[in-house]
Amino acid sequence: MSHVSHLRCVECGREYRPTEVRYTCPACGITGILDVLYDYDAAKKELNHMSLAANKERSHWRYLPLLPLTGRQFIQNLQVGWTPVYKANRVEAELGLKHLYIKDDGRNPTASFKDRASSLSVSKALESGAKAIACASTGNAASSCAGFAAAAGLPCYIFVPKFAPEGKIAQLLMFGAKVMVVDGDYEATFRLSQQAIEHWGWYNRNAAINPIPVEGKKTCGLEIAEQFQGNPPDYVFMSVGDGCSIAGTYKGLKEMHLLGLSQHVPKMIGVQAAGAQPLKLAWERNQPWRPTGADTFADSIAVGVPRNPTKALNAIRESGGRFVAVSDEEIASAMRLLPRLSGVFAEPAAAAAFAGLIQCVNSGIVRSTDRCLVVVTGNGLKDSASAIRVAGAPKLIPPDLDAVRAVVE
Amino acid sequence: MSHVSHLRCVECGREYRPTEVRYTCPACGITGILDVLYDYDAAKKELNHMSLAANKERSHWRYLPLLPLTGRQFIQNLQVGWTPVYKANRVEAELGLKHLYIKDDGRNPTASFKDRASSLSVSKALESGAKAIACASTGNAASSCAGFAAAAGLPCYIFVPKFAPEGKIAQLLMFGAKVMVVDGDYEATFRLSQQAIEHWGWYNRNAAINPIPVEGKKTCGLEIAEQFQGNPPDYVFMSVGDGCSIAGTYKGLKEMHLLGLSQHVPKMIGVQAAGAQPLKLAWERNQPWRPTGADTFADSIAVGVPRNPTKALNAIRESGGRFVAVSDEEIASAMRLLPRLSGVFAEPAAAAAFAGLIQCVNSGIVRSTDRCLVVVTGNGLKDSASAIRVAGAPKLIPPDLDAVRAVVE
Repeated sequence: MSHVSHLRCVECGREYRPTEVRYTCPACGITGILDVLYDYDAAKKELNHMSLAANKERSHWRYLPLLPLTGRQFIQNLQVGWTPVYKANRVEAELGLKHLYIKDDGRNPTASFKDRASSLSVSKALESGAKAIACASTGNAASSCAGFAAAAGLPCYIFVPKFAPEGKIAQLLMFGAKVMVVDGDYEATFRLSQQAIEHWGWYNRNAAINPIPVEGKKTCGLEIAEQFQGNPPDYVFMSVGDGCSIAGTYKGLKEMHLLGLSQHVPKMIGVQAAGAQPLKLAWERNQPWRPTGADTFADSIAVGVPRNPTKALNAIRESGGRFVAVSDEEIASAMRLLPRLSGVFAEPAAAAAFAGLIQCVNSGIVRSTDRCLVVVTGNGLKDSASAIRVAGAPKLIPPDLDAVRAVVE
Repeated sequence: MSHVSHLRCVECGREYRPTEVRYTCPACGITGILDVLYDYDAAKKELNHMSLAANKERSHWRYLPLLPLTGRQFIQNLQVGWTPVYKANRVEAELGLKHLYIKDDGRNPTASFKDRASSLSVSKALESGAKAIACASTGNAASSCAGFAAAAGLPCYIFVPKFAPEGKIAQLLMFGAKVMVVDGDYEATFRLSQQAIEHWGWYNRNAAINPIPVEGKKTCGLEIAEQFQGNPPDYVFMSVGDGCSIAGTYKGLKEMHLLGLSQHVPKMIGVQAAGAQPLKLAWERNQPWRPTGADTFADSIAVGVPRNPTKALNAIRESGGRFVAVSDEEIASAMRLLPRLSGVFAEPAAAAAFAGLIQCVNSGIVRSTDRCLVVVTGNGLKDSASAIRVAGAPKLIPPDLDAVRAVVE
């Protein structure tokens, strides 16, 4: 049973009944993204210390009482969420930290954080009787949407910008989505998807239009609070493109606090690429955001026109966190450092979050005793070409021992 | 506490004390691969219905009493094993089956089945005081070895043939392994690794020399038995290269039966590529195996000189299973079918196992009511280029609705 009580516009604060509006606020138009709110007292009866301790479900569906579905009927069986949290001892030693944790969301079914949103969105599309689902994405939202749609047998239309890396394109094709690779940037891709979705009446999985996907994303925050036994880290680092992922994770952390299942809410650190930092600049200058370029090889955050700015800015401000911006060199350096010290291979945008941590350590924002968590939002296999470029391709050697000796000694 | 009782040569049957021999049988040389045997009565006291029901560990370390480690001291924290099993309803409908399951081992930390072996091998290397670990691999064993070595801070030397796909090479580099890409086939690569390992005294992770990795692989079989509540499927389909993986999985299934935790042992179906089928031919002709070519795009099973033939042939014969061979076209077709009907994206060799199932359905070996499990041994992201080649690259479209219409209608 869904405990959704109402929807509230993040711009004007108007409230709607759960079934009154599907996407954005009629009064504010496309920028009026809605927030899904719950009857938390009712939810608390199903989601509490006792029920969680007894719950054997190792997926994000363990939080069903706090998700906008009426039941389990339309849930796909791909195991999503409840991703592992590791204490990163070797990274701690390198950075001079005492309490560093990594949450590896690259372990999701299609290897990214976005599976949290897509799993819920596909279920919601089915629940609402949609005949197809669609989204625009720099890659991960698309491939995860395609994956869950494939499991469900729901037709899926995907719009990706032409810079999407090979791994993500491969997933889309294999999951049988109808793929539109758009000759343009993410902004052009997004606009085209909106036109097509309206024209054909597909279910809209764009997290910056539809409030449902962010509810899926919040399960990352719900999990963090529970995995840390109600005492989550001081800081949570996440990379930021559209802003939906950090907003969702923050919402989950806040809700666990609201339910009495978490002692505090971490400070959210939003990490943008230096070449695509509209939200960092808006936060820094305390001004409305303005479009910027989208110049970074970290494709998942190559977003100059963020589609969920208000939710993201709220997450940073309310939590007392901050935005930081990292250069492509810092991202490349973080890409090299993290896997060789932890065994966790992050895609460029995921490594950006780690680069943000390194920057905050170097600048003294994070102290050695602070408890920090980095969310790795996508597996490095999503973009092998960037990894090889960053690492430097290995040399071919002839099959003899002297050639090995030259490498070893 | 390790319950290892002795080691037994698969060729001559000689038995050794656990610490007497490290790698192969001194009497038989390199073909004398050892089998690790346990005091199963002692293991049963720690591994039984009660203990498993109470065990909250969602990794393959839940089977520690049946693994050759003295304790937890050298275990890395990467969450390995306990991979999900899905009932594949849409695939069932397509193939006319009633009970088809997929076990997605692409969900392991470095995205392949091989993490089972590497996690144990790295732990064992540390336990035995080794200063470095090394292996030869067509890719997945290497990248997983590198990943766990990175988590442990253990130097890692890797030998891969030049045809290893980009995703696997990217992982190796990012995990900080010393990578030798050998200008030769897998056979030449394997031989060079053996020379180097002997010369420098590294810990040998080659599963066809060292009996330890197969013990890690067997956890897949242990899990299958437990995940099916002691009533495992009639058939388990796995692709076969060297033969270690199917041998390990079979051993796990057999041990669960031995411990009274499984009602029966499934028939093992070993799937080879038509261009690299030495074991299938040996089984079919009931003759010793002979080297063949290694002509297939499924890199993980492009093995013409299998390194663990006896264990693999034993698994097939003892279980009453069979070998089948599938063409590259059948593999490509299976690669396309599985993800679009299940949301599980398999690398070529993993899809080969599914191709084997399709062939067995078509030839009547598998009946519609038989319970079948396909082990997906690696994520498709490991080899995106093959996936895109198989699927056909998408066309670039201009950002306008008419272009979308042409795709949609």
